[in-house]
Amino acid sequence: MNRLAAVCLMAALHGCAGGGVPRTTQPLAWTLGSAEAGAIAAQTYRALVRSVEARLPAAAGTPSAVLGSDGTPLPCTAETAQRPAAVFDVDETLIWNVGYAYHEARSNAPFDETSWDAWEREGAEKAVAMPGAKAALGALRALGVTPVFNTNRSAGNAKHTEAMLAHAGLGPAVHGETLFLKGDVDGTSGKDGRRAEIAGRFCVLALAGDQNGDFTDAIDNGPAGKRPMAERREIAATRFGAHWGADWFVLPNPLYGGWNDPPMNRDEVVAPEQRWTYKGNH
Amino acid sequence: MNRLAAVCLMAALHGCAGGGVPRTTQPLAWTLGSAEAGAIAAQTYRALVRSVEARLPAAAGTPSAVLGSDGTPLPCTAETAQRPAAVFDVDETLIWNVGYAYHEARSNAPFDETSWDAWEREGAEKAVAMPGAKAALGALRALGVTPVFNTNRSAGNAKHTEAMLAHAGLGPAVHGETLFLKGDVDGTSGKDGRRAEIAGRFCVLALAGDQNGDFTDAIDNGPAGKRPMAERREIAATRFGAHWGADWFVLPNPLYGGWNDPPMNRDEVVAPEQRWTYKGNH
Repeated sequence: MNRLAAVCLMAALHGCAGGGVPRTTQPLAWTLGSAEAGAIAAQTYRALVRSVEARLPAAAGTPSAVLGSDGTPLPCTAETAQRPAAVFDVDETLIWNVGYAYHEARSNAPFDETSWDAWEREGAEKAVAMPGAKAALGALRALGVTPVFNTNRSAGNAKHTEAMLAHAGLGPAVHGETLFLKGDVDGTSGKDGRRAEIAGRFCVLALAGDQNGDFTDAIDNGPAGKRPMAERREIAATRFGAHWGADWFVLPNPLYGGWNDPPMNRDEVVAPEQRWTYKGNH
Repeated sequence: MNRLAAVCLMAALHGCAGGGVPRTTQPLAWTLGSAEAGAIAAQTYRALVRSVEARLPAAAGTPSAVLGSDGTPLPCTAETAQRPAAVFDVDETLIWNVGYAYHEARSNAPFDETSWDAWEREGAEKAVAMPGAKAALGALRALGVTPVFNTNRSAGNAKHTEAMLAHAGLGPAVHGETLFLKGDVDGTSGKDGRRAEIAGRFCVLALAGDQNGDFTDAIDNGPAGKRPMAERREIAATRFGAHWGADWFVLPNPLYGGWNDPPMNRDEVVAPEQRWTYKGNH
């Protein structure tokens, strides 16, 4: 390699995320490496259990955490009230896919379906339960509340996902009963259909997830298609604002998500009136 | 610019955080741009208010959220119990420094004290209250609970910080009474000394922050100096695990913090037994 190309390569590496370290390191460092991110998981699970416990026993008419097509909570029935439940996303909600994140960082490659499929099958013993998750599910089960898993992992790998959850101390999870996978119920990756199905069987008192779609499809999606990000923030804060920390519980995931598809630039994130520049001498 | 240099420059830009966007964009996009991050703030503030409300009225012997030098909660006294309070960090806890983050992204420069000092003085009307923060402080005040601000903003800019908090709808904040700044009480940037002082005046029922030092100096610091990151995670989860979501409330900040000083590489974050590589054909 000639000298200019070598300098060029080093400049490219050093220009990224500090000194040659793979570019996703800051989100990975915070999410998987900081005490603070683990503390947020623990606090969120503590809040979820307290919130569910305060609303037991469920009864006919208890508002569930699942919204109907009109955007209002589906009420529990005399029958479903006998089966209180909480519905959980899996990836970066209950478990950290540490092994897959390591693969992405090491290969400096973005997410791809083929390697992710391999991880679903091979990583059953390497997924790491997030702080507070195991204790929360244990506490819920002791209260007679059933954890139900609603994930976009693939149905073809159902047995591997069941095994992964068991290995992480979060099981049992039984596909079609307490585990719902991509395409179940309505053939889509949106979770509203599966939630409606679950709410027909259980009185769902809480939802937990790391992305908007774990709560309702209506934050990301509007009548005209995918909503602009500013609109998603607005709707989450206003139309659905009363749910956060009441019956909807969010785990922090700056590693990936619908918010990064496509990636925002700073002018989409920072409104004109919020912008500031430093005009002094350095 | 010759062709090789131009290709080189484009390669450098494209190698960073996707297509020419400044390298901090992914943490900035999630923190300031995603609905999910705002929802976490809202849920955390809801949980904080509920938790404080459930422990009122304070009384002599009520355990405070502030730890004594032995690591156990300082008890409230008959006198301090008449002044219940909650103590809040400010930056990326109650407010997002959107303008400064924009400056950093635009200049592709790291944090520096000079431009930050200018922001403290010039940005009083551009700081953005985080979702749920204003409602939480209002709810606390209505319950007779005083918000006290404990921040490492500079004492020289006290009047600007008071004005910023007022403009964001979070005030009042009075330096020396309800606002404590870097160096107050014991001349340090560590917050334990200021917390002890505040706990001598108020019955502190909750702490809120985005970094370990907003709760106790003992997570980041041990007898031998700064703890390794793995030790910080361990201590936060075990020794202090019962506090998260009970009387300590963490806001997510993957933009900056002690966890990134120095930046971790993936081998520090991912233990050997957690690593996985994809061995298939792409």
